[in-house]
Amino acid sequence: MGRVFGELVSVWEARRRALGSVSLVFPGVEEAGLVDAVGRVSAATYRARVDSPPMDRSAVDGYAVRSADTLGASSTNPVVLRLVGRVEAGEEPRCVVEPGTCCEIYTGAEMPRGADAVVMYEDTGRRDGFVEIYRPVPRYGNVSRRGEDYSAGDIILGEKTVVRPWHAAALASQGYASIRVYRRLMAGVIVTGSELVEPGEPGGGIYNSTGYMVLGLLRETGVAEPRYHGIVGDDAEKLARVIEKSLREDDFAITTGGTSLGGRDVVPDAIDMLGGRWVFRGVALRPGKPTSLAIIGDKPVFILSGYPVAAWTGFKAVVEPVLHGLLGVEPMPEPSIEAVLTRRLPNPVGYTSYVRVRVEPCGGMICATPFSVKGSGLLSSLTSTNGYIVVPEGVEGYEKGEAVRVYLTNPAPGIRGE
Amino acid sequence: MGRVFGELVSVWEARRRALGSVSLVFPGVEEAGLVDAVGRVSAATYRARVDSPPMDRSAVDGYAVRSADTLGASSTNPVVLRLVGRVEAGEEPRCVVEPGTCCEIYTGAEMPRGADAVVMYEDTGRRDGFVEIYRPVPRYGNVSRRGEDYSAGDIILGEKTVVRPWHAAALASQGYASIRVYRRLMAGVIVTGSELVEPGEPGGGIYNSTGYMVLGLLRETGVAEPRYHGIVGDDAEKLARVIEKSLREDDFAITTGGTSLGGRDVVPDAIDMLGGRWVFRGVALRPGKPTSLAIIGDKPVFILSGYPVAAWTGFKAVVEPVLHGLLGVEPMPEPSIEAVLTRRLPNPVGYTSYVRVRVEPCGGMICATPFSVKGSGLLSSLTSTNGYIVVPEGVEGYEKGEAVRVYLTNPAPGIRGE
Repeated sequence: MGRVFGELVSVWEARRRALGSVSLVFPGVEEAGLVDAVGRVSAATYRARVDSPPMDRSAVDGYAVRSADTLGASSTNPVVLRLVGRVEAGEEPRCVVEPGTCCEIYTGAEMPRGADAVVMYEDTGRRDGFVEIYRPVPRYGNVSRRGEDYSAGDIILGEKTVVRPWHAAALASQGYASIRVYRRLMAGVIVTGSELVEPGEPGGGIYNSTGYMVLGLLRETGVAEPRYHGIVGDDAEKLARVIEKSLREDDFAITTGGTSLGGRDVVPDAIDMLGGRWVFRGVALRPGKPTSLAIIGDKPVFILSGYPVAAWTGFKAVVEPVLHGLLGVEPMPEPSIEAVLTRRLPNPVGYTSYVRVRVEPCGGMICATPFSVKGSGLLSSLTSTNGYIVVPEGVEGYEKGEAVRVYLTNPAPGIRGE
Repeated sequence: MGRVFGELVSVWEARRRALGSVSLVFPGVEEAGLVDAVGRVSAATYRARVDSPPMDRSAVDGYAVRSADTLGASSTNPVVLRLVGRVEAGEEPRCVVEPGTCCEIYTGAEMPRGADAVVMYEDTGRRDGFVEIYRPVPRYGNVSRRGEDYSAGDIILGEKTVVRPWHAAALASQGYASIRVYRRLMAGVIVTGSELVEPGEPGGGIYNSTGYMVLGLLRETGVAEPRYHGIVGDDAEKLARVIEKSLREDDFAITTGGTSLGGRDVVPDAIDMLGGRWVFRGVALRPGKPTSLAIIGDKPVFILSGYPVAAWTGFKAVVEPVLHGLLGVEPMPEPSIEAVLTRRLPNPVGYTSYVRVRVEPCGGMICATPFSVKGSGLLSSLTSTNGYIVVPEGVEGYEKGEAVRVYLTNPAPGIRGE
């Protein structure tokens, strides 16, 4: 692969160059309902409109009192207060708590004038219009103070934040009925390879699988919607026209294959024809060496391997973090665990390696067994395992028995309970 | 809350009873395209149709050779082979490798007859129809063996598995153009509370926030689609009619509020009116004590607190694991990390507590600072933190400095790099 990949850059250098050379912005905003906004990226900073709670409220069912009245109360020597009324949630309290009196109050109800604490039912007894208090309550005891959740102006949801159900709930509590979110980027996916046919097509041949890997990975990012441009044969001119079409319609493009396989450099040739500027050509990534980035006009074209696993590593190591970085969106962390290696894991010097492993419980620990080294390009290394280790370029390998972080790709039954 | 929650069951007992008393099945299957199937639950076991690779193939660009011919080759004393042809990917090899000869071969191309190994370009030189081999290659060196990824009949995707991009790619590689997935369960959501109004409605009052929490949480499970039945006032008969309607249309229902708040037990009353059978009434969960489960006809009705945070805990501790358990779907693990507590965390005996924390880097470690205990019911405890700890019922608390597992709810910048 000498011609194209003369100087491989490190994964970090690839990201650094991409972040410094490319700009990418969301293609607009839209209003989404509170539920549909979940999982989307917020396009505005949302603040509390009013104090929440809007007034002091009871946090329990019981009796609103003046806390000073309850001083010294005990079950053997209760304080007796006269019951003067009742306050329900959602109504304006008409009851007023003078010294020596109390109002029955329900959870969420506004604190009546004069009262500064609530005694729970459990700590009271009741007889003939009087309430026995068995336990003293401090000032504001069992009271939700005005503004203790949000004060007007507090940020509930920052801009460029992945919306979760609690954001929807908190915005609803402030009267917001929808959330402004960014439209997803449109990502053109172009598959190259004259030998490829689409699954489901008659005939046979080699089915396009890498395209579906990339389309699925894009879908899972949540920030981009894939648009599939189909398979292009090994014809640089034809490919250039498809890339041009994609960059007219899409925010960025991703190609797979056609990078120095069997001497066919159709993707680099097409990029050069279109006057593309190379940001980097080849990454010291295993697998995933062909991963490259060019800019045509002002739009990025990510170039991934034609091999599905190498396209996966190129996507995870470069495309995904670069998308998040350029857009300014902090992604949710991937699920991961710490596990103990069951055998030595060598790493070729200067390379970042994505090593698939199977994690499972083993004698009170969690063990990680690497998939055979030879199989690093096999799809079964992803479908029959449940995690991967990233070995950074500076590390010569890990020893048997060493603890490593495993990112989980498929369920790992029994390795995490509560 | 004495009337309803006389005997709280543990979280584990609640799950155990639910799994033993309720049955819930997916409401059917549908064919989804390979990309749309990502994130869905597979409804069939998918196996490899043919060996993959279907024949021995070259794993590199180079020369197909008889490995025995390369014995003893070195750069100072190269083996010289006559070049007799070329094989490209996707074509039937016409070249045949006799002793003393080789065929040029490209990555992915079928091994020609006679050859049993490939020497990479890097280890060769070429002159006038001859190739110099500088390094010996073992039998099957640089060859992808037939069936080494999948043998015909191997499982690629098990039933009831969350489909990820690699499953789509692997099925595509076997010619599958779509994946049979389960339809999502329809989940009715009924919000109770006469004091509530919908966000966006004029007037003011207390906005329904808990409903949006539950609708969002359901959406995030991936196995259920929420159907919102709106707000019902504190009227058990009216509520019973809405629950009935939901159970006619939906696979299960979830109510929020109306559980012993201010003496208003409209949800239990409605359940009783409908002849519901209680599986458990109240869980030793903090917050989330009102969490309950009843069966009406043969459909489950989950009862959650009217408070958004207590509805979240009830959902996470009971509804979500019970849904996955009943459906037989192993969920993807939640992202989590280990962190060190910055202060003591007491736990009331017999309760499972969901404690929200803020995790952040601190002096080379990751620290977790619990949100104020008093604020356990506040939505800001979820929007201004990024994780939570589950303190199981048998644990009296954790000490300052103790390592605890934190489940991450929002991004946690800087705490996990590669």
